[in-house]
Amino acid sequence: MAFRAFHLVNSTRLAQFTRQSSRQLARTASTSQCSPSFPCVDAHAARESRLKATSRTSSSTSSVHHSGSGPEPAYARPNPTSYNIYHHSKPLPLTYSSTPLLTFDIAYETWGTLSPKRDNVILLHTGLSASSHAAATSANPTDGWWQKFIGPGKALDTNNFFIICTNVLGGCYGSTGPSSINSETGRPYATTFPILSIFDMVRAQFCLLDHLGIEKLNASVGCSMGAMQSLAAGWLNPDRVGKIVSISGTARSSPSSVAMRYAQRSVLMADPNWRNGFYYDSLPPHTGMKLARQIATITYRSGPEWDQRFGRQVRPRPESEDPSSQRIPALCPDFLIETYLDHQGEQFCLKYDANSLIYISKAMDLFDMTLPALESLGLNPPPFSSSSLHTVPNQTSSHSKSHPPPLNPPPHLSDLARGLSPLAHIPTLVLGVQSDILFTVEQQREVADALRMAGNEGVSYYELGGVWGHDTFLIDVLNVGGAIRGFLS
Amino acid sequence: MAFRAFHLVNSTRLAQFTRQSSRQLARTASTSQCSPSFPCVDAHAARESRLKATSRTSSSTSSVHHSGSGPEPAYARPNPTSYNIYHHSKPLPLTYSSTPLLTFDIAYETWGTLSPKRDNVILLHTGLSASSHAAATSANPTDGWWQKFIGPGKALDTNNFFIICTNVLGGCYGSTGPSSINSETGRPYATTFPILSIFDMVRAQFCLLDHLGIEKLNASVGCSMGAMQSLAAGWLNPDRVGKIVSISGTARSSPSSVAMRYAQRSVLMADPNWRNGFYYDSLPPHTGMKLARQIATITYRSGPEWDQRFGRQVRPRPESEDPSSQRIPALCPDFLIETYLDHQGEQFCLKYDANSLIYISKAMDLFDMTLPALESLGLNPPPFSSSSLHTVPNQTSSHSKSHPPPLNPPPHLSDLARGLSPLAHIPTLVLGVQSDILFTVEQQREVADALRMAGNEGVSYYELGGVWGHDTFLIDVLNVGGAIRGFLS
Repeated sequence: MAFRAFHLVNSTRLAQFTRQSSRQLARTASTSQCSPSFPCVDAHAARESRLKATSRTSSSTSSVHHSGSGPEPAYARPNPTSYNIYHHSKPLPLTYSSTPLLTFDIAYETWGTLSPKRDNVILLHTGLSASSHAAATSANPTDGWWQKFIGPGKALDTNNFFIICTNVLGGCYGSTGPSSINSETGRPYATTFPILSIFDMVRAQFCLLDHLGIEKLNASVGCSMGAMQSLAAGWLNPDRVGKIVSISGTARSSPSSVAMRYAQRSVLMADPNWRNGFYYDSLPPHTGMKLARQIATITYRSGPEWDQRFGRQVRPRPESEDPSSQRIPALCPDFLIETYLDHQGEQFCLKYDANSLIYISKAMDLFDMTLPALESLGLNPPPFSSSSLHTVPNQTSSHSKSHPPPLNPPPHLSDLARGLSPLAHIPTLVLGVQSDILFTVEQQREVADALRMAGNEGVSYYELGGVWGHDTFLIDVLNVGGAIRGFLS
Repeated sequence: MAFRAFHLVNSTRLAQFTRQSSRQLARTASTSQCSPSFPCVDAHAARESRLKATSRTSSSTSSVHHSGSGPEPAYARPNPTSYNIYHHSKPLPLTYSSTPLLTFDIAYETWGTLSPKRDNVILLHTGLSASSHAAATSANPTDGWWQKFIGPGKALDTNNFFIICTNVLGGCYGSTGPSSINSETGRPYATTFPILSIFDMVRAQFCLLDHLGIEKLNASVGCSMGAMQSLAAGWLNPDRVGKIVSISGTARSSPSSVAMRYAQRSVLMADPNWRNGFYYDSLPPHTGMKLARQIATITYRSGPEWDQRFGRQVRPRPESEDPSSQRIPALCPDFLIETYLDHQGEQFCLKYDANSLIYISKAMDLFDMTLPALESLGLNPPPFSSSSLHTVPNQTSSHSKSHPPPLNPPPHLSDLARGLSPLAHIPTLVLGVQSDILFTVEQQREVADALRMAGNEGVSYYELGGVWGHDTFLIDVLNVGGAIRGFLS
């Protein structure tokens, strides 16, 4: 804390005040009431003005991404020379829509060398807002979102494996999503885009694998939403997935994670610029995106990390301020934790398409691999013997014996075990983090327990400590990377 | 989950589709792309229209609260016949302002009978948004916010105690706050209102106690922000407070709680209706208030409660929908957890003044009773012997021995113990809830540890289980009420 002491000053002044007339007091107070300023609010208007100026410039001097005259946020300038695009020209059936997606594109990048037998492939699934650029390539040498985990001798070892990462269906980094042009109308889909499921995203990925002639994956690997996809890949194609890695994911979204994502969608959709999703001809809902990202950022780390990293420190005073003057707390960001959230929101708000965020976030909410939920979607797992449902797991091949499944599992856990039965024969690494508040460690145990109850004798369960919360999978190369490398070797 | 199965339908249709020409496909898809509707977004516009209509009506037919022609939300219709108002006509020095608050009002209500010696008084402090109406009175027979805890034989026993509850300084239910008229200007203060501290709020309460001729409190009792005030009351006036009850509070706001409140203030201040706080002549930022309350509501309960209460259930289908038709998930609320948050936000958004929320929420962020923080504000505790700092507490009078303070306390804990030294001789009940994500149980232990390290041998520490999170203090009459009743008896 670096706020200055007013109280001592006040004590002295109070004595003076009591000797003043109320008229004098009124004058004193009035002088101090200058018009308040709110730079954190002004920032929204300033951003709007900048975008408007860019919009005018780009529409008068060059062609723009969409058919309209809107500005060009980063995601709206696709650069197909930096990634590959697979165009699928046949209809893709969708979980929640009576009509299929007629055609679609999937952007992807690869690392390592495909073996002659095409049997060394790792399909890497991304989190919500990531692109296919997981690591540097010759076409795009900038660092990727999982740079430290991909390369020779790294967790995903390019000396051994051929790694494929896609931009997810529904995304905005080269794959078809709400910001893509609907060929029927010549306009962006916007919110006429169909509701997606995690299963839809994975089916689209397997269309790409078919195109590449890859019959079976060595492993399906994913973190966060990617972990959902990783499980779904094994479920949809149990004979085409050799191993599964599920890091900080879930097989059944919890109401608290739905709540966190709902709060983000709400602030985004309330932004007047959102216009029911039809903003591609005008300014994007940048303020809503910033506010949504601030909320998301709260869920990505942990209280203990902020205690260590920020504590109760306040931002440095601007040089324009007299360092000896009294510092008055602001209603705009003052504590470092506030400026951190503000910065994270500001950095993100023009990097990602708002509708992609809404659709993919909803797909995460809808994800539920319990048998009744799968059946209600017409997703029927292959028949399996109920005798294969174990209430006590075979732990001979389990790395962690600290969390055996309950002897009397709650109904949803049994339902989940029955839902996950197609994965009974796929060795699976489940890794969770104790400080994760978005995909809690209880949910990691749930996945591991359900797999074991389904008869899976190849479950490796790791539970990491540390303070990095959900973001651990982006940071903890030593432990997350080590677990993956060990599991895949 | 009650979403209908599309996949089976799709499989059949897909076969048909492959026999159709792409032109036919295009037509099919086009038909299904009706204009999407978003009732959760339309609700904001509808509320705006209702408020505008009310505004026109009230300005043409009756006088309005403020000098402007704005609408009248509930808080803007003060009803002084249902509570008492104490008007303080002398300046109140403020922690963060060089000028005092020249005059102020404090709204208050009482229960029970003041003893002839005036020694049976309990000062009850509220959470952020509560009014003085903690329980029914003859003037206002509706239930109060702590109805089940106040009355004959209840936790705050009106057979023994005279209970006073105030609307906090900065609030909007009768006490002076940003929505009050500044007598100098004849206009609402809005954001010319000075930044408040928890200490300022408590000083205003003690002005009321002086006015009522109450020299010493039997107890200072508070939950959530009220627990902060309860500790601050003992700190400012150690000789005037007999006992302290601190429930689900803290002595030092954590960065994670600052983050949660910052997210709320951000969405509120980004509402175009907020107008830098000068909205009293126009429409209030009702959308921002709804969004802020949704975020707050997430922090008031817990994931385990939502698991039990809502699980993954979706809202019932409207009667207008054909129950045999396919149910498509909506981007607006669909899961019960979403409709719950939506409802909580909608109920609150016109009940409380946005600026009061911003100012009081900020005061909570600023609260820090570590000695360096207090000293930086000129708040110097009375001298005390450093030998009274215990690293191992005297536990003879402690109800809980499960969490002794650490033998090697971190620096901030020692700083907190030194800051809390004025409370060394005030018996204190510290009660926390394990499922509380806003004021975590670690923070409750911190308060108890610091008090014991400061030499307080009368610390009673209770840690409750259960799934109700921060809201436990409003719900768990048996355990919270029982602990208070036992401590005060």
